[in-house]
Amino acid sequence: MPKTIALVTDLGLKDNYVGILKGVMLKINPSLQFVDITHDIPAQDIFKAAFTLKAAYSYFPSETIFLAVVDPGVGTARKPLIIKTKNYTFVGPDNGIFSLLVQEEGLCAIFAITNERYFLKPVSKTFHGRDVFAPVAGYLSRGVPPQQFGPRIKKIILLDFPMAKVDLKKKFIIGEVIDKDNFGNAITNIRESQLGELKGGGAVKIKNKLISHISSSYMNARKGSLLAIVGSKGLLEISVNQGSAMQKLKIRMGERVEVF
Amino acid sequence: MPKTIALVTDLGLKDNYVGILKGVMLKINPSLQFVDITHDIPAQDIFKAAFTLKAAYSYFPSETIFLAVVDPGVGTARKPLIIKTKNYTFVGPDNGIFSLLVQEEGLCAIFAITNERYFLKPVSKTFHGRDVFAPVAGYLSRGVPPQQFGPRIKKIILLDFPMAKVDLKKKFIIGEVIDKDNFGNAITNIRESQLGELKGGGAVKIKNKLISHISSSYMNARKGSLLAIVGSKGLLEISVNQGSAMQKLKIRMGERVEVF
Amino acid sequence: MPKTIALVTDLGLKDNYVGILKGVMLKINPSLQFVDITHDIPAQDIFKAAFTLKAAYSYFPSETIFLAVVDPGVGTARKPLIIKTKNYTFVGPDNGIFSLLVQEEGLCAIFAITNERYFLKPVSKTFHGRDVFAPVAGYLSRGVPPQQFGPRIKKIILLDFPMAKVDLKKKFIIGEVIDKDNFGNAITNIRESQLGELKGGGAVKIKNKLISHISSSYMNARKGSLLAIVGSKGLLEISVNQGSAMQKLKIRMGERVEVF
Repeated sequence: MPKTIALVTDLGLKDNYVGILKGVMLKINPSLQFVDITHDIPAQDIFKAAFTLKAAYSYFPSETIFLAVVDPGVGTARKPLIIKTKNYTFVGPDNGIFSLLVQEEGLCAIFAITNERYFLKPVSKTFHGRDVFAPVAGYLSRGVPPQQFGPRIKKIILLDFPMAKVDLKKKFIIGEVIDKDNFGNAITNIRESQLGELKGGGAVKIKNKLISHISSSYMNARKGSLLAIVGSKGLLEISVNQGSAMQKLKIRMGERVEVF
Repeated sequence: MPKTIALVTDLGLKDNYVGILKGVMLKINPSLQFVDITHDIPAQDIFKAAFTLKAAYSYFPSETIFLAVVDPGVGTARKPLIIKTKNYTFVGPDNGIFSLLVQEEGLCAIFAITNERYFLKPVSKTFHGRDVFAPVAGYLSRGVPPQQFGPRIKKIILLDFPMAKVDLKKKFIIGEVIDKDNFGNAITNIRESQLGELKGGGAVKIKNKLISHISSSYMNARKGSLLAIVGSKGLLEISVNQGSAMQKLKIRMGERVEVF
Repeated sequence: MPKTIALVTDLGLKDNYVGILKGVMLKINPSLQFVDITHDIPAQDIFKAAFTLKAAYSYFPSETIFLAVVDPGVGTARKPLIIKTKNYTFVGPDNGIFSLLVQEEGLCAIFAITNERYFLKPVSKTFHGRDVFAPVAGYLSRGVPPQQFGPRIKKIILLDFPMAKVDLKKKFIIGEVIDKDNFGNAITNIRESQLGELKGGGAVKIKNKLISHISSSYMNARKGSLLAIVGSKGLLEISVNQGSAMQKLKIRMGERVEVF
C-alpha cells in the first residue's frame, strides 16, 4: 500500500517547484500517493497555512505524512521540524505553521532535523523544501524513525491566533473573520460550541448589516441573500446564497463579527 | 491495481476542500489513483460541469468512478445520486450535472443515495462533497454494490442544452458559443456531423466577422489570424492562431454562430 | 512499482484537457504515478517550457517518462519525438522544447514517432497531446521500446537561448532576466560558476538600481529590501525579501543585468 504524503505550500502551480518536491520524494520512495491540499497559500502567509493544515489533516488516513512548505525564514536559523502525533507525522519549518494542530493534538513528539545525511546536497540557500523537507519526508515514508533525523526538542514556535470571546453573561459573542474560501464565504473564528453557550438570540452583525438568525441550510435563502450558517469547519460563516459575501460586503480579514 | 477516481468540482485549488475529499476517500480505500479533471468549474455552474464531464469521461479506463461536486443545492432536498453505465460509475448531486452523459450513454441504472451508514458524521449543512459523495465514492471503489446505498430510481433532472439547428433545406446552420478554453478558443455547439449535412459552402459568421472557410489545420493560418476549425471535441471552434479568439472578438457565452 | 509520468504543458487547469491526457494513459497502463510539473506554461511559450523542464527533470527517479505538450505547431509537419537519455525518456513535439536538456544530457537517442498503430484514432487536427503524445507515453511506460514508434533520427530543432557573457578581462558579466517565479523573483541567466570567474566585486546593477553585493541568504535582509542571491537553480536571482522584485522594479523578461 503506498504511503500518503499530503502537501501544503505557497509554491504555486505555475513553476516547477511542486513537481520537483515530488520528484525528490519519488527518487527516495517510488511507492507514494501524493495529495495536494493546496499550493496556493499566499506567499509566506504562515497563519493561513496553519489554518488550512489544521482544518484538513484529521480527514486523512493514519500514518499520512504532511509536508508543509511555507518558509519565509529559509536560510536563517529557524529549525526544520518533524512532529509526530498519535496518528500522523508533520514535516516543515519551525515558524508557527504547526501551532493549531499541536494545540488540538496535545501530546506530540517533536524533533529538530539536524542530520545532514538525509539532505539533498549541496543544500541551497533558498529552497529547503527541495533540499531538506522533501527528502526527510521521503525517508520517513520508507520507515526511517524520526529520532534518526535529529534530537527531540520540547518547544516550538506557537503563533497567537485571534479567539472569539463569549461575554461573561453569555449575552453576546465577539469574533472576527479569519479566512475566506473559493465561494466568497467569510469564515469567522466563532465556534459552533460557543454559539451553543449563548442565551437566546442568534442575530449576527457584520459591517453594520444585521442578519436576523443563523440558518440551518442554504435551502430557504433567496439567491443573492445574505445569511449566517455554521460551515463545514464547525465555524460560523457569513455567506451569500450563490454569491460572494466577501465581495458583496467588502469584508476584510479581521472584520469584526458579533452574535447576540 | 488501484481504482481510478476522477474528479470534477467547483471547489477551486486555493482551499483545502479538494485535499479533504481525497483524504476522506483514502481513509476508506488506501489504494486509489486520483485524476483531477478540473476543480475550476466556475462556482455553481452546472452547465459547464456537465459539458466538461461529458467531453472527458469516455477517455478513462473502464470501471473509473467519477466524482462530480458542483452542488448549489447542498442542504436542500436534492438527491445524491449514483449512476451506473456500462463502463463507468458517477457520483454526485441530482441537479442536471449528469444530463449530457446520460443522454449519450442511454441505458443507465440510477440510485438515490439514502443509506446514512456510508456517510461521514455529523453530516454538515454545507459540504456534502466531503460528508456524502466522497465517502460513497470510496466505498464504491472498494466494491460495495450501488444498490447498497439506496433505492433504484427512474428519473433524474435533465437540463436543456442549446442545440445547433440545421436549416430544413440544409443551406445553413445556426448555433452558438457554449464554452471557451485556456487558449481562448470559442467552442460552439455545431457538430462535425452537422457540417457534413450542409450543402456546399462552409463560410462561418460570428459577430459580423466572416470566416471564408473551415480550416483543416492551424497550419496555413498566419499568426493572429481568425479561423474556424473542428476541434478535439468534434465541435466547430472559432480560433485565433496563437492567440485568443474570445478576447480578440469579445465573444460571450451564447454568442450566435452561423455556417452557410 | 508504478512508473512515473511527469507532465509539462500549457493546457491550464480550467479545462478537462489534462484529465483527458491522464485518462488516455491510464487506459493503456493502469499502474502509473503522475506528477504535474506544471500545466501553466503561458500558451505556446516553448522557451519557458524548455527552461521549466530542464530545471526539473534531474530531480526525478530513473526511468521517469516526461510528457511535454506545448505544441503551437499541432497539425503541421512538425515531428512528434521520443528522446531517450541515459536515465530518462521524453515525449513531445519537435519544436525546441527539448533544447536545453539535450544540451545538458549530451548523448541521446532520438526517434521520430510515425507508427500510427499507437495513436488514438481518429487523430484530431488540434490535440495531438491526447491523440499522439499521451498514448505513446502510455505504451512506453508498458515497456514498448522506442524504436517501435518510428525511425531513429539525428537532428532536432534547437532554440537559441540567451547566454550571459563574462568579459574577457573577467571584470564584469552581462546577462539578462530569463524567468520569474511565484514569489516574484527575477531569475537571470548568470550562472554561479560565472560569478566564481569574476575578479573581485560582486555588485549587481538592474534597472539603474545598484545592489552592493550578492547575499548568501535572505537572513540579513530587511523585509522589503532588494537583494541578489544565487537561487535554487544555481542562477543569480534578483529578489525582494518577502516581496516581489518583478513588481517592485517593474522588471520585464530580457531585462539587462550586470555584475561587476
